[in-house]
Amino acid sequence: MSSIVRLDSLALKAEIDLQKNLFLLQILDQTQLPHREVWLTMTSLPQMIEAIQSLRVRGAPLIGVTAALFLAGQALSGESPASLQHITQQLYHARPTAVNLMNCLTAMRSQIDNDASAQTLVDTAITLFKDDVRLCRDIAEHGSQLISNGDHILTHCNTGGLATAGVGTALGILQRAHTEGKKIHVYIDETRPLLQGARLTAWELQKWGIDCTLITDSTAAQLMRQGKIHKAFVGSDRIARNGDFANKIGTYSVAVNCHHHRIPFYVAAPSTTVDRSCLSGDHIPIEQRIAAEVRGAKGYFGDVTWAPDSVAVYNPAFDVTPAELTTAWILETGIYRHKDIEQGVFS
Amino acid sequence: MSSIVRLDSLALKAEIDLQKNLFLLQILDQTQLPHREVWLTMTSLPQMIEAIQSLRVRGAPLIGVTAALFLAGQALSGESPASLQHITQQLYHARPTAVNLMNCLTAMRSQIDNDASAQTLVDTAITLFKDDVRLCRDIAEHGSQLISNGDHILTHCNTGGLATAGVGTALGILQRAHTEGKKIHVYIDETRPLLQGARLTAWELQKWGIDCTLITDSTAAQLMRQGKIHKAFVGSDRIARNGDFANKIGTYSVAVNCHHHRIPFYVAAPSTTVDRSCLSGDHIPIEQRIAAEVRGAKGYFGDVTWAPDSVAVYNPAFDVTPAELTTAWILETGIYRHKDIEQGVFS
Repeated sequence: MSSIVRLDSLALKAEIDLQKNLFLLQILDQTQLPHREVWLTMTSLPQMIEAIQSLRVRGAPLIGVTAALFLAGQALSGESPASLQHITQQLYHARPTAVNLMNCLTAMRSQIDNDASAQTLVDTAITLFKDDVRLCRDIAEHGSQLISNGDHILTHCNTGGLATAGVGTALGILQRAHTEGKKIHVYIDETRPLLQGARLTAWELQKWGIDCTLITDSTAAQLMRQGKIHKAFVGSDRIARNGDFANKIGTYSVAVNCHHHRIPFYVAAPSTTVDRSCLSGDHIPIEQRIAAEVRGAKGYFGDVTWAPDSVAVYNPAFDVTPAELTTAWILETGIYRHKDIEQGVFS
Repeated sequence: MSSIVRLDSLALKAEIDLQKNLFLLQILDQTQLPHREVWLTMTSLPQMIEAIQSLRVRGAPLIGVTAALFLAGQALSGESPASLQHITQQLYHARPTAVNLMNCLTAMRSQIDNDASAQTLVDTAITLFKDDVRLCRDIAEHGSQLISNGDHILTHCNTGGLATAGVGTALGILQRAHTEGKKIHVYIDETRPLLQGARLTAWELQKWGIDCTLITDSTAAQLMRQGKIHKAFVGSDRIARNGDFANKIGTYSVAVNCHHHRIPFYVAAPSTTVDRSCLSGDHIPIEQRIAAEVRGAKGYFGDVTWAPDSVAVYNPAFDVTPAELTTAWILETGIYRHKDIEQGVFS
């Protein structure tokens, strides 16, 4: 019997041989998409943290699973429990908004406290990976029921196989509907400033053969006015008990516009995104990022600055959408409506 | 007595010597802002049309005045009435949405029909320039009454001295309030895809010493939710009889968000922007631009493509904001409210 475990997703690969103490963790460098598909091997903590902070690996579920696997690899390479706790702490603070990162690391930390053996930590990390794949599958199964043949759907940022270990959350739903044979057309918000829609969602939808059109973020409203958008699906980095949720900056504007045009607005996320300790969106910490991201654009495609260097910038990575603008919450356990939230399904 | 006339604005210069048959028309190449201030001398029709279509000269009022002056220069250089009519026709179709361009050219065409002498056409073009300066001044005077000390104001695109022969429309109002001593803070939408906010409005507000913060277009909604935006001022390229108006893509999303957050939303434009032959916003032609503008960004700052080359794009240059989302229309003749529109002030 082989002791080698291979994990393989769109943006994450791991190869683990417990007998030989081998651990190979690779991430698809998303900053180079759609131009190049380059896999990076994660070998050191500074490299792992840099990859998370510079969004080489991104998407709330995916960074959680990746961090857990990285930690398991460190255990396999002989790091002491104290050192593993230190590494956990460092990873914990890499990005502040995604609760999945904290959840995965908390699960790993509990194991370190109980039994810091490499075997146990590797098993825990593999379970987190497989759980995420299953969560995505179940979210997609529920969510695709909300999609009709012929739907034109708006999405924001990237919530697909590049954001999770599985098929994705909001985008996973669209892929599921597509594979079920429903004809859909997806409008992709480019998602300034980091252009995850233009770079990643466009790449992913084309890979899947789903009809799509790229637009600037502020074009969506006019398409809604023209009746060309029937539904919107977005993901989330943290959902509060009252149903408020944080997601990529610009999501709130989509929600307001959907509300104005009476277009259903759905959020899809694994239940690990629900932060039961968080009473409302007001308590979700919002990551502030550097001005240069807004003064221009930078990536594998180049590095340009179009605004005056000296102009002040406000650049929050996320915004908060209040529950009242959300039509339904799609989790792996089902589709939840306002009455469910009021009955405490997230409490 | 000198017969030399000099016209001088932030983005347009003309020097006219009727006795010597000299005509020098220069535009500030706005595609190179904020990095370089380069003045281009307009000598040929293809060059003038290219400058309009590539937005070296832009802003509905400014392109109208510039086209009229160019035509006057052609008259001075001895073009026949038939040739002048042909040139007018070519300029007329350079960009389809801005009614000011058509208005200015119609005024010139009437003169050509009556009296195609260089003297007459130069006088007409100079009058159009001076009229625009006066219109801007009067718009600013009315509009600044709507601004209070301490206001935080959102604006979209560029509607200042780079968009008119005068101080601007929406931005002219902000400059006026500033020079009157009111303390204001301006949030500038970057205005994808062509980044007029990030490049031009940021440059212009800094030149005037007005406090400002640059944001991505989809960040405005969250600022409104936080109570950090008190008013929004935008310009217009064409106003229909019923008060609907076309403006830079993204304006409609600003209007919807202002409506949702009960924030006053003002449009400022000279009355030459009102198209009395246009019943409603549905009848305003909307210019569609090339996909490359959305797949990346291009300018003096560089040329980058971040989206897959093959992805479909929808790239309208303008959108239409319905009258019902507009708090008031600020023209050089005063501030108009819904009851004024209903009473036919634009009919």
